[in-house]
Amino acid sequence: MNFASDNAYGAWPEIIAAIGEAAMGPAPSYGDDALTARVRERLSQLFERDLVVHPVISGTAANALALATLVPPHGAIFCHAESHIAVDECGAPEFFTHGAKLVGIEGWNGKVDAAGLNHALAHFLPGFVHHVQPAALSLTQATELGTVYTPGEIAALSGVARDHGMKVHMDGARFANALAHLACTPAELTWKAGVDALSFGATKNGALGAEAVIFFHHDDVKDFEYRRKKAGHLVSKMRFVSAQLDAYLTGERWIRHAERANALARRLADGLAAIPGVEIAHAVEANAVFVRLPEATVSRLRSRGAVFYDWGPPAEGRTLIRLVTSFATPEQHVDSFIKLAADG
Amino acid sequence: MNFASDNAYGAWPEIIAAIGEAAMGPAPSYGDDALTARVRERLSQLFERDLVVHPVISGTAANALALATLVPPHGAIFCHAESHIAVDECGAPEFFTHGAKLVGIEGWNGKVDAAGLNHALAHFLPGFVHHVQPAALSLTQATELGTVYTPGEIAALSGVARDHGMKVHMDGARFANALAHLACTPAELTWKAGVDALSFGATKNGALGAEAVIFFHHDDVKDFEYRRKKAGHLVSKMRFVSAQLDAYLTGERWIRHAERANALARRLADGLAAIPGVEIAHAVEANAVFVRLPEATVSRLRSRGAVFYDWGPPAEGRTLIRLVTSFATPEQHVDSFIKLAADG
Amino acid sequence: MNFASDNAYGAWPEIIAAIGEAAMGPAPSYGDDALTARVRERLSQLFERDLVVHPVISGTAANALALATLVPPHGAIFCHAESHIAVDECGAPEFFTHGAKLVGIEGWNGKVDAAGLNHALAHFLPGFVHHVQPAALSLTQATELGTVYTPGEIAALSGVARDHGMKVHMDGARFANALAHLACTPAELTWKAGVDALSFGATKNGALGAEAVIFFHHDDVKDFEYRRKKAGHLVSKMRFVSAQLDAYLTGERWIRHAERANALARRLADGLAAIPGVEIAHAVEANAVFVRLPEATVSRLRSRGAVFYDWGPPAEGRTLIRLVTSFATPEQHVDSFIKLAADG
Amino acid sequence: MNFASDNAYGAWPEIIAAIGEAAMGPAPSYGDDALTARVRERLSQLFERDLVVHPVISGTAANALALATLVPPHGAIFCHAESHIAVDECGAPEFFTHGAKLVGIEGWNGKVDAAGLNHALAHFLPGFVHHVQPAALSLTQATELGTVYTPGEIAALSGVARDHGMKVHMDGARFANALAHLACTPAELTWKAGVDALSFGATKNGALGAEAVIFFHHDDVKDFEYRRKKAGHLVSKMRFVSAQLDAYLTGERWIRHAERANALARRLADGLAAIPGVEIAHAVEANAVFVRLPEATVSRLRSRGAVFYDWGPPAEGRTLIRLVTSFATPEQHVDSFIKLAADG
Repeated sequence: MNFASDNAYGAWPEIIAAIGEAAMGPAPSYGDDALTARVRERLSQLFERDLVVHPVISGTAANALALATLVPPHGAIFCHAESHIAVDECGAPEFFTHGAKLVGIEGWNGKVDAAGLNHALAHFLPGFVHHVQPAALSLTQATELGTVYTPGEIAALSGVARDHGMKVHMDGARFANALAHLACTPAELTWKAGVDALSFGATKNGALGAEAVIFFHHDDVKDFEYRRKKAGHLVSKMRFVSAQLDAYLTGERWIRHAERANALARRLADGLAAIPGVEIAHAVEANAVFVRLPEATVSRLRSRGAVFYDWGPPAEGRTLIRLVTSFATPEQHVDSFIKLAADG
Repeated sequence: MNFASDNAYGAWPEIIAAIGEAAMGPAPSYGDDALTARVRERLSQLFERDLVVHPVISGTAANALALATLVPPHGAIFCHAESHIAVDECGAPEFFTHGAKLVGIEGWNGKVDAAGLNHALAHFLPGFVHHVQPAALSLTQATELGTVYTPGEIAALSGVARDHGMKVHMDGARFANALAHLACTPAELTWKAGVDALSFGATKNGALGAEAVIFFHHDDVKDFEYRRKKAGHLVSKMRFVSAQLDAYLTGERWIRHAERANALARRLADGLAAIPGVEIAHAVEANAVFVRLPEATVSRLRSRGAVFYDWGPPAEGRTLIRLVTSFATPEQHVDSFIKLAADG
Repeated sequence: MNFASDNAYGAWPEIIAAIGEAAMGPAPSYGDDALTARVRERLSQLFERDLVVHPVISGTAANALALATLVPPHGAIFCHAESHIAVDECGAPEFFTHGAKLVGIEGWNGKVDAAGLNHALAHFLPGFVHHVQPAALSLTQATELGTVYTPGEIAALSGVARDHGMKVHMDGARFANALAHLACTPAELTWKAGVDALSFGATKNGALGAEAVIFFHHDDVKDFEYRRKKAGHLVSKMRFVSAQLDAYLTGERWIRHAERANALARRLADGLAAIPGVEIAHAVEANAVFVRLPEATVSRLRSRGAVFYDWGPPAEGRTLIRLVTSFATPEQHVDSFIKLAADG
Repeated sequence: MNFASDNAYGAWPEIIAAIGEAAMGPAPSYGDDALTARVRERLSQLFERDLVVHPVISGTAANALALATLVPPHGAIFCHAESHIAVDECGAPEFFTHGAKLVGIEGWNGKVDAAGLNHALAHFLPGFVHHVQPAALSLTQATELGTVYTPGEIAALSGVARDHGMKVHMDGARFANALAHLACTPAELTWKAGVDALSFGATKNGALGAEAVIFFHHDDVKDFEYRRKKAGHLVSKMRFVSAQLDAYLTGERWIRHAERANALARRLADGLAAIPGVEIAHAVEANAVFVRLPEATVSRLRSRGAVFYDWGPPAEGRTLIRLVTSFATPEQHVDSFIKLAADG
């Protein structure tokens, strides 16, 4: 019963097979291969736009490289106070941007809200050399708390960003889960709503380690390729990263897998919510459930082999825990977990 | 006929199979998995020493992270003027070290020599705050010119480094090829000869993208793990990098593959050397051949589909080219290349 | 009527004279001169301790260099959300530390409080590689809001810092004003209360541009001198910076000047507080007054030549403004300002 | 007898007086003052061009900030192998540029020559992501070896730079000495010869610590001001730096002082050259003399109080030493030095 993270699960057989196929014979190195070109085509089609794609091998690399390309060293990056770039990347954005500043914005359900963003922006005087200058807004989709921005919410926030001369980045480590939750197209969720750059994640949804940095406007790409090389993220046998993305994007598998993960989270939430004394903390819109359980229940679940993270220290006899489902989480683990939680 | 680089070839079937096996079920993320632990054991056995191992996905990352761990921002890194870290990493070491300086040393056959090193060191006054301070010597094994340092040569250079308070790093992107050339143990080629940290490469010899940063002394590791994370090089599904290294290190395959590549280079060199007007430029000790051919021959080879790099502009009617062989280069390509070159 | 900042005023005649004297004849460069040695002695006596002193020319340089010496790139620096290092240095600490993270803590009257600090610290798991690691607490003395930490408050906060393995830095750009407010010694206000490093400011209180970075423990100094050089802050004719500090520290002038500035702020606050509709926003303990005035009053004051900063946008018909007094602010300007504000 | 460096001498009385005058009354901070504006005007007139000027307090800061503004992190800076930026700034350019690479070019008499530059440039493939990309040529005027580039030499080198898309920076720490040697205008020595940015030094020729970063083209200035602030080099009481530059540029004093220093160097060289066994190593065109003396002579001179630097270890019984003269070096010290050297 592993609910620690979606990255605790392995990889799709189709992706393994694609890697095996890609292993045959010679191919140009460093991304000049046919598979990388095909990934570019697939993503251009998917997003209905001529875009720039660069594969990398981790979400932190994708975020930090995209942000460093958009933001000068004297820039400010606005993001949710609990976002991955703010909390879980050990200062990678600060390193890659050479010292830009992340401005954490509080907001309900893990989402930046426009009022909070405007409030924060009021502290930065444009052109005042003592202040870092607003340069980018970064949104996490789905959020770290398992919620999802609607296209309308994104457009509203992008509008604020645009008014302040900022670019908009989306950390889409769980982009598939967000898309699976909404009835909209990838384009509607990104550039049509004002997003300039996307960290398109495949790892958490079943790749080995493959993310695509997507720029929707050629002018924004600038020196990205030099930054990637200089950061040791231009891999020689790029075809093996691209093979993952190519298999990932073949057909609708990636959405089906994300739907499955989301459905399991929903099922988990519904099952747990029915137990007295249990409280679902945030809207369950993607593949994560944040739930408050009695401390005793939490201990019992752990003693029976369930793996998950506490989300802060216990308070008033209860602990907030995070449960993440994935493309490969066994359905019976969800049911067993609910049963064990209920048998308190 | 692809002789562009050993990274132009794919991956061993055994490595693909290992990845497939690793894909099943959940596992701890970020290197806390059983495969990563096994790689650590295998390398400790191989190097006859309790050592620290951290897998990464590219040679540039391995080098830059190892060097940044050993060298302060005000440090100097001494290396061959044509080494990979000096020439082919777009300043990654400077970025990761936050502005240390690489000091390129000329030396015959791509090797740093002790006299050149001592001469360069004389320009840096110890404790003089205006000068960057000697902090590391980095040796490439096998070198960029296809030659190999003997354990004695390494020990002599390490001695100079030690006398100046410097650490010794080895860029072992082609460590297997160097080892295959010499009759010695991995330990003799590294820590017994004074090497402190090794970028142990597997990618060029048949992995998808897997290198191990090895520290032979626990005291040197310091904040390596934070640096790796901050640089986006701590991958979540580490087991897939470790699975490659684990399969790579099973049995003696990795040495056999390197021997094969070396033998093909030898065969290529011997065949070419027999052609009038052809000159082998450097000793052929690993899997690369540097050879001067008439310009017309170079053009003909390219027109017949041979892929390789020029190593500088033509001079006096001849062009110096680099030919790299790999674990998977077809033997008949070597023979065809020689034949084509001879039919001038 | 210039209340914009204490740095809007010039310099003491004694400091100018000292520079003139220092200009004669040759002297060793880069801090090996007699004046720099004397500053070291003076400060050691003043702080009753053998300490390390390095003069620099700006407060931002002093803070950023001190913090970069104490904090690794993967470190977190805790400070008040409105502190100078967080808000007014354009990300200098992030640049000098190579990407450490500043964690802003809210706190009444511009002071970090222990509860807020403990709350913030709870979010950082020790040794968890995804999180930046608590490395330093930075306190501003006097604060940006014109308040002053007592030795007891500093000791309490230092205790929390110590419990989490953090160093304590004090931004003392207005150290003189803080000391003038309190009945204690420089030692009691710093190392006896747990402070490890101090940016000792002289510029705002009457030097041209001279600050001393003080480390109270030799072990903390590490590579400070290389960092200063690498940042272009090791000036060749150091004697001219040291001459300022030497004159500044001669006798009790520096405290007398700070007392004068504080008294003028007190007088300004008292005069303004007596006007109906006027509200003093923070305790007036040093040389700054934060006061809410009707918008019309603010406009009238400006139209009559008063110079000062708004501290945020108007709200409910009133504007919060900041008034800073200095060693050289004419007394009659204070009285004129009060009179003008009252005649609304 | 101090010939250690021109920065071993103090400051002009006129500069001290100007600082005293600038100390009166309030003035806008951070460069918005009248003196800074006047310096801008003076330099625009001097260089016959509308230019951008930003004062800083050290030559290393001027160089590193100018270069970081012109060069991206993946850029290469070409300079003489013995230039100040390459050897004596502890890697400041690498730090400020976030990891660009300095490429040292050998060249006779301390000057980059066009052939050496072209040879070095041939190693960098344009657009090849593995190579840092040629971004700037930096020339030192006068050079570290006391020689001076002619306008023609500068124009030739700038032409090569321009052909490779590079900007041209001039380290003019001793610009006055170079100008004093040549019969040309400041404009002819800089932008008319293709120089884009100049570190205009005043410190070595008699200021306390004042250099002006000059950009001859507005488009090149980009984010300079944010970089200066972020590096702690935007001083609050800028008027005191500008007052130095203003007094420095009043009338022709700055040229007269440089001429005096140059003449003393010439006199020193002529006197020494007449002594048997003494060899002048480089052309004496500015205010430095590089001379080979018998080891015994060097010892005797030191024992009699002469202060100077050795320029490398002794060879064949002689030592190469550097003697620098300044605006304030007493004439009789020059004569005494010659006399002492001759009495061997």
